[in-house]
Amino acid sequence: MIQTERKLKVLKIREQMQRNQLEACIVSTPVNTYYLHQCIFQGYTYIPLEGEVFSFVRRPSDFNLKALQLQDGHCHFIRKPEQIIEVIMAAGLALPASIGLEGEEMPQSQWARFEKMFATSQIKNISHMLRQARSVKTEYELEQIRQSARLHEAVYRNIPSIYRPGMSEKDFCIEIEYQMRKGGCLGLFRCYGIDMESFMGSVVAGDNAAASSPYDFALGGAGHPSNPIGATQDTALREGQSILVDMCGNFSGYLDDLSRCYSLGKLPDIAYRAHQVALDIQAYVQENLRPGVICEDLYNGALKIAQEAGMAEYFMGCRQQAKFVGHGVGLVINELPVLAPRMKEPLQAGMVLAVEPKMVIEGIGAVGVENTFIITENGGEKLVSLSDEIIDLLA
Amino acid sequence: MIQTERKLKVLKIREQMQRNQLEACIVSTPVNTYYLHQCIFQGYTYIPLEGEVFSFVRRPSDFNLKALQLQDGHCHFIRKPEQIIEVIMAAGLALPASIGLEGEEMPQSQWARFEKMFATSQIKNISHMLRQARSVKTEYELEQIRQSARLHEAVYRNIPSIYRPGMSEKDFCIEIEYQMRKGGCLGLFRCYGIDMESFMGSVVAGDNAAASSPYDFALGGAGHPSNPIGATQDTALREGQSILVDMCGNFSGYLDDLSRCYSLGKLPDIAYRAHQVALDIQAYVQENLRPGVICEDLYNGALKIAQEAGMAEYFMGCRQQAKFVGHGVGLVINELPVLAPRMKEPLQAGMVLAVEPKMVIEGIGAVGVENTFIITENGGEKLVSLSDEIIDLLA
Repeated sequence: MIQTERKLKVLKIREQMQRNQLEACIVSTPVNTYYLHQCIFQGYTYIPLEGEVFSFVRRPSDFNLKALQLQDGHCHFIRKPEQIIEVIMAAGLALPASIGLEGEEMPQSQWARFEKMFATSQIKNISHMLRQARSVKTEYELEQIRQSARLHEAVYRNIPSIYRPGMSEKDFCIEIEYQMRKGGCLGLFRCYGIDMESFMGSVVAGDNAAASSPYDFALGGAGHPSNPIGATQDTALREGQSILVDMCGNFSGYLDDLSRCYSLGKLPDIAYRAHQVALDIQAYVQENLRPGVICEDLYNGALKIAQEAGMAEYFMGCRQQAKFVGHGVGLVINELPVLAPRMKEPLQAGMVLAVEPKMVIEGIGAVGVENTFIITENGGEKLVSLSDEIIDLLA
Repeated sequence: MIQTERKLKVLKIREQMQRNQLEACIVSTPVNTYYLHQCIFQGYTYIPLEGEVFSFVRRPSDFNLKALQLQDGHCHFIRKPEQIIEVIMAAGLALPASIGLEGEEMPQSQWARFEKMFATSQIKNISHMLRQARSVKTEYELEQIRQSARLHEAVYRNIPSIYRPGMSEKDFCIEIEYQMRKGGCLGLFRCYGIDMESFMGSVVAGDNAAASSPYDFALGGAGHPSNPIGATQDTALREGQSILVDMCGNFSGYLDDLSRCYSLGKLPDIAYRAHQVALDIQAYVQENLRPGVICEDLYNGALKIAQEAGMAEYFMGCRQQAKFVGHGVGLVINELPVLAPRMKEPLQAGMVLAVEPKMVIEGIGAVGVENTFIITENGGEKLVSLSDEIIDLLA
């Protein structure tokens, strides 16, 4: 099965290589290593446009190389990347005229080393290309995401029973994290890019939802100065505040994303009206999560619904507004595509999107919802059946 | 206070710049931004060898720029890094002949953009230099690490009361994580380098301690294929197995590191003898954690104690052995210096080291200890008073 998967993924990457006129590429980051091999090692995978794929393992030193064997594959232990060249030449292969490296994530110092190794090759940045290859999931990957969503949903169903009077925002967050872990969540929150960090996700109550974050997440929360995102308040949750729970669902190595809104007692009317607009936006987007639909059109359509409802000032934040309404999800929380302005890419069947219309109202907090959908010919397939409504924790 | 700290740190960085003949440098990663400013924003800090420091904020868009004001500082919102040049030139400053960027962590694509911006400057990699500047802590930083160690210790004191018969390695790990979070741990586990990832640390029981990891941690644990480190077993912990708890102590933004060994009932004698050798190594290293002592000498001395005790085959792993016995700790879990072969650097007062002599015995598990020490003229100042002995959870 792993071999079949690896072949499918090599095929996807080669399609992208052909389109980008690349003779070879090297996969090196943990996430893309896991994508290809369903395991993580420190090393490199050399994928020529045709012929054999070579895997190079630096660590662990006792790694079971057989686990990497493609039907026609070659696996080697190496101590340093320069040995890649030796192995390729020893196999009687020519060095490629063009080669791709993960330039959005590979540090410059490592890139410079590869530049010396492949001195006669043109070197291109394949990060975006690999993200595109990853954006359409295989059946196996869809099953992994479905599994995460199922387990994630099971934890969220218990959230009302987790709340105890007197709990603070931070207490509530920690109890939910604990139930996530007990429910099988692996914990690790993987992002693309070096500027985003989060522990397990966020729980924000009341005005903490309006605190702007340096990260490109939909919502903020002041967090801690060393990780300014999510829960920060030590005082008891109060009636009239909304509480938005947005934890990352890494239950299988593949993530789903799921947010729900809670209240203590009744919120002011504006909160329910704003929440309904978020649900209207979700319904509009879900209906249109079909192959061929253009990503930015969905963002613009969502914004228009918010505007026509007079809710534009709350849409995706108030002091700082996020400029997207949905994002790909898979091995990382921010896969392609993104439902955002200027994204001209058409949706394809098998893409997976977290759609998260949220509204932030100062004095109340965040309302809205987030669900993960698979793009199909019939619109978005929602992965959970959990209610989208605001749940009163005191009811 | 923040201003005083920032000045101290700019001074440290400028000393390094002088030594490395750099006219300016740009700090860009979250960790080094936090180091300088005690807060995180998406943006850049431009530090010339002399004169004013400039801060550039991309996000949050409503960031309080006053929080960044040096007495003589300049702070600006920008949308793109090219504006750094505009601001510097508008201030009447010449572009530097040489400039440093964080080349071990800055992705190549971003580096290439800065290369175009600073087309007339020589560009150098300052990652190592910044790690060196960070390796000697300020009094404020030492207090942050002490605080983490105090809170970390308080959680570990309760570990014996956390254990319940029938718990698996994973259950025990999750309960300890939960107590860490309740005790104030921020959770986020920060590493230097893109090849290391861990959730909150590791709990490994019995032979899982011998499972090799792709990461450069002291111990392995099979973990999950998507994050191969730490706890993996769902079956009940058994008598005769050791359990090593090694969680990262991020209670303040600054980390301490602390490992303790537990057992269910009595372990085979060899385990206690190996543990005693680990304690002997710790005592030897602690005695020598003084300014001027050479890092590799401490590793070699530690290895010699293990060899003379006939324990070399267990030292720092069995199937795969880690080649260090201690590492710097601070904003990340793997700061400089490292007590490892070929590390010719002398210790300096105010460095902080986690010393972790560990022994892995197949059929039993890991024994040994880890404590965080501050380098002083009188040897290592141990930050906790917690017992170093193996604790029997059934006693």
